[in-house]
Amino acid sequence: MAKQKKQPRPRAETPKGFRDYFGQEVVERQEMLAKIAEVYRRYGFDPLETSAVETVEALGKFLPDVDRPNEGVFAWQEGDGGWLALRYDMTAPLARVAAQFRNDLPSPYRRYTMGPVWRNEKPGPGRFRQFYQCDADTVGSGSVAADAEICAMLAETLEAVGIERGDYIIRVNNRKVLDGVMQVAGLAGDEHELVRGIVLRAIDKFDRLGRDGVRALLGTGRRDESGDFTVGARLSDEQAGILMDFLPGANPHKPDDPSEVFTRLLHLAGPSALGQQGRNELLQIAELLDAQGFGPDRIVIDPSVVRGLGYYTGPVYEAELTFEITGDDGKPRQFGSVAGGGRYDDLVKRFTGQEVPATGVSIGVDRLLAALRATGRIGGTAEGPVIVTVMDRDRMADYQAMAATLRADGIRAEVYLGNPKNFGNQLKYADKRQSPVAIIQGSDEAARGVVQVKDLVLGAKIAEEASLEEWKAQPAQTEVPVADLVSEVRAILARHR
Amino acid sequence: MAKQKKQPRPRAETPKGFRDYFGQEVVERQEMLAKIAEVYRRYGFDPLETSAVETVEALGKFLPDVDRPNEGVFAWQEGDGGWLALRYDMTAPLARVAAQFRNDLPSPYRRYTMGPVWRNEKPGPGRFRQFYQCDADTVGSGSVAADAEICAMLAETLEAVGIERGDYIIRVNNRKVLDGVMQVAGLAGDEHELVRGIVLRAIDKFDRLGRDGVRALLGTGRRDESGDFTVGARLSDEQAGILMDFLPGANPHKPDDPSEVFTRLLHLAGPSALGQQGRNELLQIAELLDAQGFGPDRIVIDPSVVRGLGYYTGPVYEAELTFEITGDDGKPRQFGSVAGGGRYDDLVKRFTGQEVPATGVSIGVDRLLAALRATGRIGGTAEGPVIVTVMDRDRMADYQAMAATLRADGIRAEVYLGNPKNFGNQLKYADKRQSPVAIIQGSDEAARGVVQVKDLVLGAKIAEEASLEEWKAQPAQTEVPVADLVSEVRAILARHR
Repeated sequence: MAKQKKQPRPRAETPKGFRDYFGQEVVERQEMLAKIAEVYRRYGFDPLETSAVETVEALGKFLPDVDRPNEGVFAWQEGDGGWLALRYDMTAPLARVAAQFRNDLPSPYRRYTMGPVWRNEKPGPGRFRQFYQCDADTVGSGSVAADAEICAMLAETLEAVGIERGDYIIRVNNRKVLDGVMQVAGLAGDEHELVRGIVLRAIDKFDRLGRDGVRALLGTGRRDESGDFTVGARLSDEQAGILMDFLPGANPHKPDDPSEVFTRLLHLAGPSALGQQGRNELLQIAELLDAQGFGPDRIVIDPSVVRGLGYYTGPVYEAELTFEITGDDGKPRQFGSVAGGGRYDDLVKRFTGQEVPATGVSIGVDRLLAALRATGRIGGTAEGPVIVTVMDRDRMADYQAMAATLRADGIRAEVYLGNPKNFGNQLKYADKRQSPVAIIQGSDEAARGVVQVKDLVLGAKIAEEASLEEWKAQPAQTEVPVADLVSEVRAILARHR
Repeated sequence: MAKQKKQPRPRAETPKGFRDYFGQEVVERQEMLAKIAEVYRRYGFDPLETSAVETVEALGKFLPDVDRPNEGVFAWQEGDGGWLALRYDMTAPLARVAAQFRNDLPSPYRRYTMGPVWRNEKPGPGRFRQFYQCDADTVGSGSVAADAEICAMLAETLEAVGIERGDYIIRVNNRKVLDGVMQVAGLAGDEHELVRGIVLRAIDKFDRLGRDGVRALLGTGRRDESGDFTVGARLSDEQAGILMDFLPGANPHKPDDPSEVFTRLLHLAGPSALGQQGRNELLQIAELLDAQGFGPDRIVIDPSVVRGLGYYTGPVYEAELTFEITGDDGKPRQFGSVAGGGRYDDLVKRFTGQEVPATGVSIGVDRLLAALRATGRIGGTAEGPVIVTVMDRDRMADYQAMAATLRADGIRAEVYLGNPKNFGNQLKYADKRQSPVAIIQGSDEAARGVVQVKDLVLGAKIAEEASLEEWKAQPAQTEVPVADLVSEVRAILARHR
């Protein structure tokens, strides 16, 4: 054999910004996604799984999040000169599929999809370069009934995974209403595009800056705590006033009265035909939802929703979890957004030239899992398998047969496959595996046709230090005939459930 | 707005060598993987989901399949100069994880994983650049009990997904036996490495070339039908004879007698200590499997298995489906391999310098799905949702309420969301969706508090051509009070199950 050059050892590290998921994390995500899929399917949505890789040409270069314009994709050049890239969301692949298979797919096409997406951004705390998305979209329907349906489905989905009614709210707004208000404020037309961009970004910061902060940004500008100055939109007082009326808190006395919202919108956006259309679409959505039993306790029309207004072309919607958690600063705060979406009516136009209306929602899978953990819905300790310990190396076949007997009865079971010499290691292993029960059979027990069944939940605390003899003397341990192995294990498992 | 340059439209195409999966394809794969996961979990295996991206350094450059040495990975350079790549299998990421988390993971560590892997090879018929793998491995156990366990688990898995007993066979061999035979034939030592490679490749072609073809390759060489000449190993007749005895068909009178196999192996490999060790390990595996109820009708010791012998270091195993399908050439042939694996004892050595024994299996997910389709286990037409048609555009809320009522009862249902003007299009849509039932309520029915419930399975054949009036006259259509909507739909669904 040719002598190999000594290479430096590679580092065993998950690449920066990426994650590995172990055991129960994987199971919990799968279970949550299965519950979501069940609701989606009940609403008539069909699964779609596109390839993780797309041509850069098909992906395009735009990204939906206006607040992260610099993030890129992972791309590489092919031998033939073309570029391929990992998908950065589920909408771009849907657009490609809707164009490519437009003659084969039903129209409207309702589809859901679940899987990882990749973003080539600088890794940072809580910012990952691969994460799960779970989307549902309706392609080919311009009806607001499609938007209403997705809001209803989102509410049912949240409840199906374990978010209780009252712990979430879905807010619905309409891009057309804001565009109408912009028209009323004299900000329509190409020449005002830059100003509209500043206004949109200002409104988008309402959560963080409050009414005063936004007002400053609509005017001359705002200096933040670090001393940086952000140039404002330089609107007149009258113009700024119209937009301020659009913000939440404009009428602090009736914040949640749905009919007040529509009256106010009629007043604010009504003078614009587009604004009135947007307001009427919201009214229709409210009526459609009401007919299906979704009142403003679950889904509310809320003109203060601005997230995504720059990207979407019609109704937008966002699901917020309203219960409080402890923030990184130790202070309580609302959990916040877990899903959002809206209407985008130029989905496949890039490919075919034809306008195809579409509307859809994306659930932040990791956020929603975190919410379920925060409310204690998931994240309990998972029960490990029953461990059949190995006392006599030569009798491995007997131990395997015991495990097989347990498994045939549906009980999760395994034989210890490490070096059996040190029995303490076997107990440590059982502990690490969170095993509820250990099975022990030495040669004396084998000769007598019995087996020791050890309740590890009871014995866990002292297991690590005790010797085999002490450990075997615990009251949590029972000797039973081999024939009673399954029933004894079943009894212990039942005791702890 | 600045005028945008007209760009040529991107092509809407799945990148070459990649695939999209629609509807029932996604559901069927998910269901199969869930059944596999259930068996794996029952055996004590825990799920692991690593990031799709690894550093090129961590992946290494070797690939497990000796017959495809040139295939590469999809890789790209990072801003910091490092290279990242998509995983090409599940074993390299497991090695990285086993090294990185060696202090946290239980030892032995049983894990399973399911997901896509990517290969940067030339796309071709049936050769894809992204495909699913489903692996189970035990890391940290040198015991052949670990190998036996995985073979048993593989048998149970195949039965769990719907492959009947008798339709599959798992063949087990041991690299050490072949190495032992090589020693007996005087082919041990570094100086014979090249010859051993030729011998291994020759034996690997046994399925295709038969005994005569292999014999030629063990000698001077072989000219194939196209005229190409493959240089042989130039073994002496005696050397070649020893290896030919190793091949199937050496004793055509007793092909399947397990005890004969062990006698023959004792004779062939016995003179080598390594060969004898390998033979004894196989004997132990057979005994362990027998104790768990897996006889040679399901798992058989078979020295003719050579696939993977170059890669693995100990026992190797392969699952073959034995039923016949019609090949591309129209002739019947055995379905063939759907899973394979073996022992590789240097898993994490690249990272830590320590030898860690491991053994594991990889199921070819797409192959197994194809097998289930070939046997009619999956692939039947999936039932679509109930379609609530739209007769009056203004009464969308009523239709949505009907769909909500059906869904609340667990019935998959949706409202038609396309342009409702042409009723024929609604029926075509229902047909495309494979809907079992359509709901129809015009203004007259609404006034009378009734609804038309149409059995589309009965009416399917004429639905496409008939006018609304003809269609409504079909006996498959029933008028019921709105209150009876759910029970009537349930009755029709039950009729077709």
